[in-house]
Amino acid sequence: MTAFTHIDAQGQARMVDVSGKPATVREAVARGRVRLGERAFELLVRGEIPKGDVLAVARVAGIMAAKRVDQLIPLCHPLPVEAVEVHFEALAGEHAVEVEARVRTRAATGVEMEALTAVSVAALAIYDMCKSVDKGMTIETVHLVRKSGGKSGDWER
Amino acid sequence: MTAFTHIDAQGQARMVDVSGKPATVREAVARGRVRLGERAFELLVRGEIPKGDVLAVARVAGIMAAKRVDQLIPLCHPLPVEAVEVHFEALAGEHAVEVEARVRTRAATGVEMEALTAVSVAALAIYDMCKSVDKGMTIETVHLVRKSGGKSGDWER
Amino acid sequence: MTAFTHIDAQGQARMVDVSGKPATVREAVARGRVRLGERAFELLVRGEIPKGDVLAVARVAGIMAAKRVDQLIPLCHPLPVEAVEVHFEALAGEHAVEVEARVRTRAATGVEMEALTAVSVAALAIYDMCKSVDKGMTIETVHLVRKSGGKSGDWER
Amino acid sequence: MTAFTHIDAQGQARMVDVSGKPATVREAVARGRVRLGERAFELLVRGEIPKGDVLAVARVAGIMAAKRVDQLIPLCHPLPVEAVEVHFEALAGEHAVEVEARVRTRAATGVEMEALTAVSVAALAIYDMCKSVDKGMTIETVHLVRKSGGKSGDWER
Amino acid sequence: MTAFTHIDAQGQARMVDVSGKPATVREAVARGRVRLGERAFELLVRGEIPKGDVLAVARVAGIMAAKRVDQLIPLCHPLPVEAVEVHFEALAGEHAVEVEARVRTRAATGVEMEALTAVSVAALAIYDMCKSVDKGMTIETVHLVRKSGGKSGDWER
Amino acid sequence: MTAFTHIDAQGQARMVDVSGKPATVREAVARGRVRLGERAFELLVRGEIPKGDVLAVARVAGIMAAKRVDQLIPLCHPLPVEAVEVHFEALAGEHAVEVEARVRTRAATGVEMEALTAVSVAALAIYDMCKSVDKGMTIETVHLVRKSGGKSGDWER
Repeated sequence: MTAFTHIDAQGQARMVDVSGKPATVREAVARGRVRLGERAFELLVRGEIPKGDVLAVARVAGIMAAKRVDQLIPLCHPLPVEAVEVHFEALAGEHAVEVEARVRTRAATGVEMEALTAVSVAALAIYDMCKSVDKGMTIETVHLVRKSGGKSGDWER
Repeated sequence: MTAFTHIDAQGQARMVDVSGKPATVREAVARGRVRLGERAFELLVRGEIPKGDVLAVARVAGIMAAKRVDQLIPLCHPLPVEAVEVHFEALAGEHAVEVEARVRTRAATGVEMEALTAVSVAALAIYDMCKSVDKGMTIETVHLVRKSGGKSGDWER
Repeated sequence: MTAFTHIDAQGQARMVDVSGKPATVREAVARGRVRLGERAFELLVRGEIPKGDVLAVARVAGIMAAKRVDQLIPLCHPLPVEAVEVHFEALAGEHAVEVEARVRTRAATGVEMEALTAVSVAALAIYDMCKSVDKGMTIETVHLVRKSGGKSGDWER
Repeated sequence: MTAFTHIDAQGQARMVDVSGKPATVREAVARGRVRLGERAFELLVRGEIPKGDVLAVARVAGIMAAKRVDQLIPLCHPLPVEAVEVHFEALAGEHAVEVEARVRTRAATGVEMEALTAVSVAALAIYDMCKSVDKGMTIETVHLVRKSGGKSGDWER
Repeated sequence: MTAFTHIDAQGQARMVDVSGKPATVREAVARGRVRLGERAFELLVRGEIPKGDVLAVARVAGIMAAKRVDQLIPLCHPLPVEAVEVHFEALAGEHAVEVEARVRTRAATGVEMEALTAVSVAALAIYDMCKSVDKGMTIETVHLVRKSGGKSGDWER
Repeated sequence: MTAFTHIDAQGQARMVDVSGKPATVREAVARGRVRLGERAFELLVRGEIPKGDVLAVARVAGIMAAKRVDQLIPLCHPLPVEAVEVHFEALAGEHAVEVEARVRTRAATGVEMEALTAVSVAALAIYDMCKSVDKGMTIETVHLVRKSGGKSGDWER
C-alpha cells in the first residue's frame, strides 16, 4: 500500500471546509479585455456583426456564468449569488472592449471566482460572435480589481 | 465611443441586487393547463399512453425544473428551494389536464418563477409523452395564482 | 413479487429506441403568447422595463433552452440542434407579445419539443423581466405550428 | 375524474417541505469499494493506467458530483455544500480501492445523499478510467457510515 | 522546469481521441442492487413509502443520468443516447431491489458508462426515497452485464 | 408595432443554421497564460499549494468545460467533442503557466470555442487553487493558435 499512498499523496484536492465561517456581505469586481482588431471592432461599434447583438448576448452569458461557477471550477463552493452586473466599454484606440463584472452575495466565502468567470465567459461570447470576421482576437489580462468582505478583509489591485 | 455607448445603453440587463433584503418565507402557487384533445385525454386517463406513466414523469420534470430556474431564466437569483409539489387534475369536459405547482423557500426573493417554470416544464413533459397520439395539443394560461412573503407582500390573482 | 410487479407495471417510462431510424433533416416551428397587460406592454414597447432589455434576454433564454431539452424533459433524446431562431411580435391590440421559435437539425427524432421549450422559456423570461410591473400576466396557447421531416412526415396545425 | 385520481394517487412524489426547519451543521460520511481485479489494480497502483491519473480524476469527479445532487436525485433539496473530501485506500489483498467521502454543510436537511453520490460517482470514474484493462470490475457496498446534525440526531452504522 | 514537468507527468488525463472510429450500434446492460432491509422493503412493495412512488422517480432519475454521463464522468465522451430502459425487480428473500439499465446508441464509443451510471443513480434515488425509514441500506455489486458493438467486440460477464 | 420592431431589430441574435453543412474532421488549438507571481509560482512548482494538486484539477476543469461550451456560450452549437487534451508548461522566467488545449471532432462547425473555453476555464481553476497565496494573478492572451477543417479551411495565427 505504500506505493498507492504515494500516488495518492500529491492529488489530495478537496473543497475547503467553510462551515465554521459566518455569512457576510462579499463583493468582487473583475476586469478583462477583448482585443478585436480594427474591422471587427468597427462592425461591433456599428452594430453590424452578422450573428446579432454582441453585447446583449455576451452580457447574458457573463451573468449566467457567474451563477454556475461551482459547476465549472471544481473546488469552488456553491454560492447564492445576489447581484451581478456586466459592463462593457469601447477602447477605440486599441480596437478593444473592456469587460467588467461586479458580483455581490452574503456567504461564507468570497465571489472573486464568480466575477472572474463572468468576465471570461462574456469575453468568450464576444469572441464567438465576432469570430467569423476575425479569428485573431485575444482575451487579455483578466484580473481581480478589488474584493471586500470576509476574514481576509478588503483587497485592491 | 458615443456610438458604442448608444449600442450598450438599451441592453443593460443585470441581476438585481438583493443582498440588502432579509431572507423570509416565500411561497408561490402557479397553474396552467394542457388541452389534449379527446383521444390523448382518454388514453392518459386510462393509463395507456405508450411512452409510460405520463403524470409520474411530468411531476418529476416539474419538480426538477423548479430547482433549475436560475440556469434557465437569465436574471433569476439562485434560490434554495425548500418545498415543491406538483399536482394534476383531469378536466374531463375540456379533455384537459390542470397543472398546479406550489413552491416554498426562505430567501431574499420570491419563488414565482420557480412555480411558473415547474408548471411549464410539467406541461411540456405531458406534451412530449402524448405527442405520438396528437401533435395539436396546447399549453394554456400559465399564470401565477398567488404569492406570499417579501416586501411587496401578498398577491392573489 | 406479484405486488411489486403490479407497482412497477404502470410506471414503465422509457426513452424510446430510435437507433434504427436514419438521421434526416427535421424542422419545427412553435408559437405562444405572453399577455402583458397595458402598463407592462407600454413599458416593454418603449424599452423602459427596469430590469433591462427584455427581448434580448428572452431571446437568449429561448435559444439556450432549445439546447437543453434532453435535460429538462425526461424522455427526450439528446439532439445536435443545428439552428434556432426566436422571434417576437408586438400585438398592440391585445397588449401581448407573440413568441415564435424555429428549430432545425439532422437527427433520428424531431425537434418539436425543442421549439416548444424555446417558446415556453422565452415567455417565462419575459414574465420574469416584467413581473415587478405586473404579476397578472399569462402565458397562452403554446403550440406547435408545423413540423417537417421524419417517418411521420409533415404536419401543420 | 375517478379514474384519473386513481392514476395519480400512487405517484404523488414531492419535495418534502423543510422551510420550517432550522439550518444546523450537518455532516455525513459514506464509503464504497471498487473491486478491480489483479491486473487493473496493479496498473493503478503503479500509475500506469493509460487514460491518466485515475485517483486525481476520480476525486474531482466525486467532489463535483456532491455539488450536483439536487440535479441528479429528483427529490433532493439544493444545499450549499461547504466541505467535501474524497479519500482512497488501496486494499491490496482484494485488489480493490476503498472510496470514502465526507461532506459538511449548514442546512435544514442532511448531506447523506451528497456523500453517497460522491462515492458512487468517484467509483464510476475509476471504472471508466480502468475499463480498457478490465470490464469485469464491480462497485460494491456503497453505504452511509455515519451522519450527524438535524432533528433525527446522530446515526452510525 | 524539471520539477514542474515531474509534477505534471503523472496527471496527464485526457479525453481519448475517437475521431478516427466509425459510429456503430452500441449496446450495454448493467445491473446493481439496493439492499433495503425488511421494513423499507415491505413499505416499498406496498407502495407506502411516504416520499412518493419510489420506482417511478428512480426510473426517471436513472434515465436522465444516462444522458448526463459526459458531465459527471470527466473523461467520457458526449454521446447521443438513443434508447434507455431502467427495470426493477423485487428480490423478496433478500429484501432487495435489482436495478437493470439498458442503453443503446450509434456512436464511436460504447455506452457502458451510461448503463452503469443509470443503475447507480437509480439506486441512489431509491436510497433517497427510503432513507427516512432506514439509513442502513446498501448499494451492491453495480456491474456491467454485457456490451456489444465497437472494435473490441462483444463482452459478456 | 413600429416601435416594437425597432426595439427588436438590433437584438436578433440567432444560432446560425449549419444543417446544410457536412460533418468533417475539425481541430483547434488554443493557448493562454496564467501569470502567478513569484511566490505562488514557486509553491505550484514544488507541489505545495494547500488546496491540492493544481494542475490535475485544472486539467479536469478544462476538459469538462470543453464539453459544456454550448451551455456557456449562448449561440454555440452542441458538438460531440471527440478528443480533448490540456497541457501545461512552466515559464520560470515569467512565473507563469502556459495552458494549451487541443480539441477534435467530426461536426458541421468548428471547435475553436471549445479549445478557447478549455484554456479559459483551466486558467480560472489555476487562479482558484492559488488565490489564497496571491490575488494579483492575471490570465493573459487567451487566443486561437490554429484550426483546421471546414469550409473556411485552415487558419494559423
